[in-house]
Amino acid sequence: MELIGERINGMFKDVREAILNRDPEPIKRHAVLQSQGGARYIDVNTGPTVSAEDQPGVMEWLVKLAQEASPLPCCLDSTNPDAIEAGLKVHRGKAMINSTTADQWKMDVYLPMAAKYNAAIIGLAMNDKGVPKDANDRLALAMEIVANADAHGIPMPDLYIDPLVLPVNVAQEHVPEVLETLRQVKLLASPAPRTVVGLSNVSQRCPNRPLLNRTFLVMAQACGLDAAIADVEDGDLVDAAATAHILLNKEIYCDSYLKTFRQR
Amino acid sequence: MELIGERINGMFKDVREAILNRDPEPIKRHAVLQSQGGARYIDVNTGPTVSAEDQPGVMEWLVKLAQEASPLPCCLDSTNPDAIEAGLKVHRGKAMINSTTADQWKMDVYLPMAAKYNAAIIGLAMNDKGVPKDANDRLALAMEIVANADAHGIPMPDLYIDPLVLPVNVAQEHVPEVLETLRQVKLLASPAPRTVVGLSNVSQRCPNRPLLNRTFLVMAQACGLDAAIADVEDGDLVDAAATAHILLNKEIYCDSYLKTFRQR
Repeated sequence: MELIGERINGMFKDVREAILNRDPEPIKRHAVLQSQGGARYIDVNTGPTVSAEDQPGVMEWLVKLAQEASPLPCCLDSTNPDAIEAGLKVHRGKAMINSTTADQWKMDVYLPMAAKYNAAIIGLAMNDKGVPKDANDRLALAMEIVANADAHGIPMPDLYIDPLVLPVNVAQEHVPEVLETLRQVKLLASPAPRTVVGLSNVSQRCPNRPLLNRTFLVMAQACGLDAAIADVEDGDLVDAAATAHILLNKEIYCDSYLKTFRQR
Repeated sequence: MELIGERINGMFKDVREAILNRDPEPIKRHAVLQSQGGARYIDVNTGPTVSAEDQPGVMEWLVKLAQEASPLPCCLDSTNPDAIEAGLKVHRGKAMINSTTADQWKMDVYLPMAAKYNAAIIGLAMNDKGVPKDANDRLALAMEIVANADAHGIPMPDLYIDPLVLPVNVAQEHVPEVLETLRQVKLLASPAPRTVVGLSNVSQRCPNRPLLNRTFLVMAQACGLDAAIADVEDGDLVDAAATAHILLNKEIYCDSYLKTFRQR
């Protein structure tokens, strides 16, 4: 189970202020906390308030800071291809691109970029018509991404299909479809692509957010989830992920497995 | 999701002492707490220290007390058929028998009893050779129970197949097999039998027992689990079960779903 720490995102107030003031400390602190918390990647997102022309520079600054403060690779999170590429240029090690959709023009931009920089890439099971409701329709879009990624020579273990979980309070009927999609994505290719979710989406504007997040996470793990963009500074969430990982026999049980999971 | 409260069991010290002293108060207190906590059944088990000849009388006493203190039906838990039948005779409403194995002599005792008293019954996917390691072997034993139950006219929704989860620290490789068994049991008949686990087994002699229990519970729910014998007095466990139930779209989401789950 690979956790991708979500906290370096301009959507959060402290990070937005750090970006506006070019204050490195909050960025470095979140990189360290998430690294110690059990993250395998640090997601970096400039957030919605940075102008399009400033995004490449801010992305570069965030990636450098996150990698100064932690040994982890980054998950470059932007809808702006220039920002993604600016991040890739300064990134050390194997980055992850977050994300392409199944729209042809986006795949034609991001998949060659992933191939050029030997980066992993997240493929969202949606297109310009939106997010399908049924597992089958999500899988059809996932298959388009799988086929295009393969055509660009991207190894399947570098492709992370995200079936897109929506908030349970407005799209409850989607949640079991997401779980079914996770199960079936593994049948689309051999070796199979990996799977990822943007976990915190499931609980947007709900009470009990941490409970919803960690419960959905381990249910998704039981259905084959490989990775999640999540709040790795939430210790209960990481404990739940580590416990599901052990129960699925992905790592040998030891009494101190919670500590081991964080130290991998 | 049906939770079966495990606490009225002579294995626990307070209940053992209550049985020895014929003190009704601890029994009634656990019946009330479990009923308020969200249980749908109250498991009653005389425990290992009551002699075989005393077990029917103690079972009768426990069932009467539990049903005086709560409106719930009981899950009659014993390896002694006389104790089970003594409980059935005084039980009000639809009881559950816990349990038969796939051994023919046991099925020949307990299945006619379930039919006679119109009780639900738990069928353990094991026989006198022990608990199989693989999902397929568990399913073969489950199928024997399904066929025998059907021959006795027991409706499939009254049969709860228990794939038998073992402690993760000694039988870790069994855990994913249990999850796979839960998925496939639903294919054995139409309508399908239900599924149940004795949840606390998964964490025997482990640290972090509540965390292991609630994590395994929601993973099993994601694989189709219908019921669990569990510590319903553990509020975090019930919260997790209620949350998984909502995420599976088994009941309409509302912001107060945790309260609603306990009040059903």
